[in-house]
Amino acid sequence: MDRVGNVSVAERREGPPEFDAAFRERLYDLLKWRRDVRRFKRLALPLETVERLISIACLSPSVGLSEPWRFVLVEDASRRAAIRACFEACNREALEMQTPDRAALYARLKLAGLDDAPCQIAVFSDRSTAQGKGLGRLTMPETLDYSVAIAVHTFWLAARAEGLGVGWVSILDPARIASILDVPRDWVFIGHLCVGHPVKEDDTPALEREGWEHRHAPKGVVLYR
Amino acid sequence: MDRVGNVSVAERREGPPEFDAAFRERLYDLLKWRRDVRRFKRLALPLETVERLISIACLSPSVGLSEPWRFVLVEDASRRAAIRACFEACNREALEMQTPDRAALYARLKLAGLDDAPCQIAVFSDRSTAQGKGLGRLTMPETLDYSVAIAVHTFWLAARAEGLGVGWVSILDPARIASILDVPRDWVFIGHLCVGHPVKEDDTPALEREGWEHRHAPKGVVLYR
Repeated sequence: MDRVGNVSVAERREGPPEFDAAFRERLYDLLKWRRDVRRFKRLALPLETVERLISIACLSPSVGLSEPWRFVLVEDASRRAAIRACFEACNREALEMQTPDRAALYARLKLAGLDDAPCQIAVFSDRSTAQGKGLGRLTMPETLDYSVAIAVHTFWLAARAEGLGVGWVSILDPARIASILDVPRDWVFIGHLCVGHPVKEDDTPALEREGWEHRHAPKGVVLYR
Repeated sequence: MDRVGNVSVAERREGPPEFDAAFRERLYDLLKWRRDVRRFKRLALPLETVERLISIACLSPSVGLSEPWRFVLVEDASRRAAIRACFEACNREALEMQTPDRAALYARLKLAGLDDAPCQIAVFSDRSTAQGKGLGRLTMPETLDYSVAIAVHTFWLAARAEGLGVGWVSILDPARIASILDVPRDWVFIGHLCVGHPVKEDDTPALEREGWEHRHAPKGVVLYR
């Protein structure tokens, strides 16, 4: 796990890397084709791969270099079943909050890859970590959680660059997940990841394909002050 | 702003992109060389560049496709001065929380590029957005904020791929920033970004170079359940 794929590249380089237009185009493709995957092939994923992706995620920025991310690999069948039950309960409740026409669509959306994904990772933020000595988080302790969300994103991009898919499940009760996984009390649940080989690739979000929502023009989200 | 650098690439491609080992090595370099930049050259940044980076950031995942990110470009000198004053007040308070030896180091760290960065962007999460119809955020409304943090990360990576630097300032009072920038009441402040040309590139976090904190081995953050 200490070994990260291509450390040797960084070691042999003399100065800072320069990224060319070709790389930026590929990066754009990666961002464009990164999907929230719900349908996975039932193919095993080597633990080595998962641990390598976690190592890469650990290159993410964190407030005060606190590295508050904690990755819990959920392998036990009974814990997985408990998480699935938690999802079903929360999903039922969410369904009731939707109007009838939307509820039908909502029910149809395959919201979780919990049954098929070979790898499941619950991700937490350690709010009590002493690492970083509190720097940068006195007025905004939530920046610890943001750091973890960003590490999830890094994991996601690194996985997609290897042809793997990630689905982020958030229709869960954080307290229940913490209890199922028996993690320290100060850990805040950030999200539950399903990881594996996607059934198909797409450049359009599943929710857009399903007619639930569509992307809006970026100019609508910019203010000038 | 609707024009994103290389849409044509995605259009001319027939199927999903495959990323090779060479791309993954460059992606790893990008992650390894992405720094929280505090020292900027006093070189102007074209608005077009900033808006393009925001467009790329909008490719980020968001809960229920809610796209809750809001980017406030802070251009007015008096608003910039007010944000700087807010930083100074919060920084002074943070200094008092540190032990004397650490406080000296803390004071020495150049924590903000607020004086030199040509571009400043305050980023918010619109907690009241109807977009996404509430999907996925009933039990965890904070996933809206996580989506925005991830969009900041995407912006950061895209900027670095163009040789630009980003610094995330979090030593600020969120309520005060919202007031200075006169944004809607439901918007949650996520972070304030300084963007520009970095004085130098580095593959080691500034806090590590300064002896404040160091990175830990990834294996320490993984649990098996």
